[in-house]
Amino acid sequence: MSQEFKVVFQPSGRGVYVLPGTVLLEAAARAGHVIETPCGGMGTCGKCLVRIVSGECSPCDSGEHALTADQVAAGYRLACRCRVQGPVTVEIPESSIFQSGAKILSSSLGGDTEIKPAVQKRFVALSPPVGEDQRSDRDRLEDAMEGFEVGLEALRRLPDALRAGSFGVTVTTVDRRVVRVEPGNSADRLFGMAFDIGTTTLVGTLVDLSSGRDLAVASMVNPQTSFGDDVVSRIKVCRDASDGLKRLHETIIDAVNRLIGEAARKASVHPEELCRLVFAGNTTMQEILCGISPVALGELPFVPAFREAPRIKAGDLKLRACADADVVVFPQIGGFVGGDTVAGIVATQLDRRDKPALLVDVGTNGEIVLAHAGRLTATSVAAGPAFEGARIAQGMRATNGAIEKVVFDGDVRINVIGDVPPTGLCGTGLIDAVAELLRSGVLDVTGRILPPDELPRGIPEAIGRRVIELGGQHHFVLAREDESATGAPVLLCQRDIRELQLANGAIRAGIMLLLKAAGLDPVELDEVLLAGAFGNFIRRSNAQRIGMLPPIAHERIRFVGNTASFGAKRVLLSGDQMEYACRVARLTRHQDLSLDPEFQSEFGAAMLFPDGDGA
Amino acid sequence: MSQEFKVVFQPSGRGVYVLPGTVLLEAAARAGHVIETPCGGMGTCGKCLVRIVSGECSPCDSGEHALTADQVAAGYRLACRCRVQGPVTVEIPESSIFQSGAKILSSSLGGDTEIKPAVQKRFVALSPPVGEDQRSDRDRLEDAMEGFEVGLEALRRLPDALRAGSFGVTVTTVDRRVVRVEPGNSADRLFGMAFDIGTTTLVGTLVDLSSGRDLAVASMVNPQTSFGDDVVSRIKVCRDASDGLKRLHETIIDAVNRLIGEAARKASVHPEELCRLVFAGNTTMQEILCGISPVALGELPFVPAFREAPRIKAGDLKLRACADADVVVFPQIGGFVGGDTVAGIVATQLDRRDKPALLVDVGTNGEIVLAHAGRLTATSVAAGPAFEGARIAQGMRATNGAIEKVVFDGDVRINVIGDVPPTGLCGTGLIDAVAELLRSGVLDVTGRILPPDELPRGIPEAIGRRVIELGGQHHFVLAREDESATGAPVLLCQRDIRELQLANGAIRAGIMLLLKAAGLDPVELDEVLLAGAFGNFIRRSNAQRIGMLPPIAHERIRFVGNTASFGAKRVLLSGDQMEYACRVARLTRHQDLSLDPEFQSEFGAAMLFPDGDGA
Repeated sequence: MSQEFKVVFQPSGRGVYVLPGTVLLEAAARAGHVIETPCGGMGTCGKCLVRIVSGECSPCDSGEHALTADQVAAGYRLACRCRVQGPVTVEIPESSIFQSGAKILSSSLGGDTEIKPAVQKRFVALSPPVGEDQRSDRDRLEDAMEGFEVGLEALRRLPDALRAGSFGVTVTTVDRRVVRVEPGNSADRLFGMAFDIGTTTLVGTLVDLSSGRDLAVASMVNPQTSFGDDVVSRIKVCRDASDGLKRLHETIIDAVNRLIGEAARKASVHPEELCRLVFAGNTTMQEILCGISPVALGELPFVPAFREAPRIKAGDLKLRACADADVVVFPQIGGFVGGDTVAGIVATQLDRRDKPALLVDVGTNGEIVLAHAGRLTATSVAAGPAFEGARIAQGMRATNGAIEKVVFDGDVRINVIGDVPPTGLCGTGLIDAVAELLRSGVLDVTGRILPPDELPRGIPEAIGRRVIELGGQHHFVLAREDESATGAPVLLCQRDIRELQLANGAIRAGIMLLLKAAGLDPVELDEVLLAGAFGNFIRRSNAQRIGMLPPIAHERIRFVGNTASFGAKRVLLSGDQMEYACRVARLTRHQDLSLDPEFQSEFGAAMLFPDGDGA
Repeated sequence: MSQEFKVVFQPSGRGVYVLPGTVLLEAAARAGHVIETPCGGMGTCGKCLVRIVSGECSPCDSGEHALTADQVAAGYRLACRCRVQGPVTVEIPESSIFQSGAKILSSSLGGDTEIKPAVQKRFVALSPPVGEDQRSDRDRLEDAMEGFEVGLEALRRLPDALRAGSFGVTVTTVDRRVVRVEPGNSADRLFGMAFDIGTTTLVGTLVDLSSGRDLAVASMVNPQTSFGDDVVSRIKVCRDASDGLKRLHETIIDAVNRLIGEAARKASVHPEELCRLVFAGNTTMQEILCGISPVALGELPFVPAFREAPRIKAGDLKLRACADADVVVFPQIGGFVGGDTVAGIVATQLDRRDKPALLVDVGTNGEIVLAHAGRLTATSVAAGPAFEGARIAQGMRATNGAIEKVVFDGDVRINVIGDVPPTGLCGTGLIDAVAELLRSGVLDVTGRILPPDELPRGIPEAIGRRVIELGGQHHFVLAREDESATGAPVLLCQRDIRELQLANGAIRAGIMLLLKAAGLDPVELDEVLLAGAFGNFIRRSNAQRIGMLPPIAHERIRFVGNTASFGAKRVLLSGDQMEYACRVARLTRHQDLSLDPEFQSEFGAAMLFPDGDGA
């Protein structure tokens, strides 16, 4: 295992461990900072400017012309062209943060008006009751806050809060409704959470709604996976078991409550201080979250229960938050194209581009949105959970112990999250490994791991030695038993390749059919935004080598991270963004591939890996 | 024990057992029918007309002039002047039902516009989704019901209901909100419940909201009594125990859910079909029901948490009903004068009288409202639970086995509910017994049961024999061991008399101080409406003999039954009545006797029983 170096980013203070030679852009993405790269990381636009505060980095390997000599002398580099050579601390200027998050994150420092959360707080000082003024507590507060109405949850706390605070209380309001009351002045503590509820992975981000700052992130494998890996199997559970919906609903609620607990603990916030919760997920996940049976999604013509969710309070779902807090569930487009896709459009503002652009959100459900000629078209494909490390023999989420990067340089070099011996591999490690196996010839285009006697000549011996036979099939050793955390080797199995091909083929076929319907050739795409809750950075060249993305110019592909979380956070921070999301959901056309006879043949073709290097 | 006769009323079909000689008016009240008696039962107004369908009744003992000979021949009688002489079936014409209930009950037969429940139902037929029409289920329904919004609970049922009903569903709406969806057409099944949540007794009435008809009544002792008999002791529990409020809240919710279960079973209604729940109770009970701490009610100046309750859904309180159903909690006046008092005013329309009238609601909290000179003034006194059979040695609710009537006629004659051997005595039995003991001289005006050697001469021996000594005090045997259900005698103990005196004194003192503040003498009262959740008929002459009511003309006193339940039912059946209730709560002046130095002296004086017959 190679030595890794710690990279710390400012002003967030987040740190990651990376292999030497990793570009800063990737390291930043792994730390959750998505940096502007309009040129696609070619070193030409100069937007990804960062400053080396201390430590070792390479000079930019090209693109220095985008920087002045003074800038270089002051430690400025282009994140896309500068590589880690030792422990390093890097400052990311506000202006370099990717635009979708930009207006939100920038406002964490400035007073940007984009932060207009629907939920607000203020301190109110009241006069205590006396003999001549025996108004009820509610009347006393409402008289002082003309036009506001006290909700049940706030009223439950009002008598004690008034008396504990000497009749000075802080009220939390949504629209004209008081949802919470606290004694004294705590107007500066205003919190909410944004959730990406994926089929396989759940991510919750606790946000300071005053500053827009992320205070904590918690994530976990969706425990509903015990009911089935994909949405179709969960819909079946709801259809076939009388308590199926109840159990799936309770499972996701319990999981969300655990995320809330973890994030709240990390951020030193009481769960009851959470005054707004925003959820983005696919239609099945969102309906189950709401306690709505998704069974109709399993019957033609795949109709969701809602486009816009009804008003829901945290108490309705037994969520650990202020019981009167609004639970905002993203609007849905249709069929399996749900709130996560809308959140992706909101995060990237995909509809505001004037050239053809594609958003590809890689998850267990793959969602693809094409922006072209002033309209949006979206589709969904069942990719399976391979990219999230599930249904892979030694797959795991992108957490400590996961192989997240694989490079062949005569032997196998791996990068393990947390700088520990590897336990398994996550989605990005899987993509890397398959791409490198294809490049080296260990894997053929049909996805077969070649037996040692069929391996091409000239393959390094150290690589060839790693092909082993077990149970009549061949597998590839990513980490030997003496290198692993478990004492057993970390293998990439033949069956894992098949899972990847299914996921890959589905996404590729979806992309091709969307383009076809729009009369576009892949090369006409101005941009491909690659999103996903990988928790990690997909290497574009490898995503193209395995054929997930069509053969378009490498620099037009941009990794935009977890756009479902980003979009949810935007809506959390701004009521206007929710209106925007509803507009997007109403105007996006749903292309239902399940009814498209071409899908199967396109899918079959896309199961084969590309012949040479794709891009 | 005397023989009782069964009296059955038409068209309700309700039956009660009464002693021979009982006037029909009383028998009807015991069966839950409050009959018009504007003349106070003097046989002069002719409003209490009933028809003897079959069986034995006396001719009217006066007042026949109010009837024509044809009417008499056709079996018509005045309920106030006609006595039961054997088993009898009696029809109560719609026009004879007491006005407060009249407009509601009459509409059970006619199409009276007074029944305008805020909750409504209608059948909607939709076209099923097809390839070209993949609108979400919610959009499909809302498009067909312009301006209505589907709530969470309805949406949860919508996908299955649409498909089970071939896209024909019955929707339940409140205002512009759809709260429930059922497959097929069930527009004729629209139900709600009205609750009187008293300190000691809980009553729930399940009502058909289309016809206004009562379908079932359930009642029980408030299980919160295990935390204390009166509201003050329960407020203390909330103040002193960290989980006090939670336990009291859960106790009342659980009890209400049991009432719902019982009434729903009797009426063959599913609890989830209950689409509106209306509650009337005192401020402490209502606040605990809502989960609001009543602690501020225990501190000067006794401020309630709300005048008008916030919007509450059944799901917020975990009530067994349609989760999205509105829970309507009555508006409150102030201090301890709560929703039950407002409900009493709504039930009797007390504010619409042009002569001075008094509403006295006898419960553990006694509430008194004076209507005079165009304004309402209300007060509350802590009477204790004696009238509801609690804190009485052998006290019990007015259910099977309770002595509910006591007459001295040389010996003691008792009437037991259900025509079974007696187990104990209820409030009306207690009042009767004490009145008769006063009349016969067994009890002196200080409330002392005289020992045998002090008993007045001429007292019947059978009565005198019933005074026994136990533990240094004297008690009165209402039923001997050989007559009782338990094998032990049913006693009226000296301590019970003291409890009655406290209750009596508090109510009497409250009445006197309200009148005094208004500059009125008792004789100026045009009407005294005597209300209470006795479940039984208080005999006016006895209520006056014990001094509960001031010495005004007997015929001006009218027993109006459980007005808290009546008022709650009115609001259940009509949205306009809720507006009326809010207006009443806003305009009624609260006279706080706890701050009145005269109350203690008035209370002390009222503890003494009146000297002779009161009226």
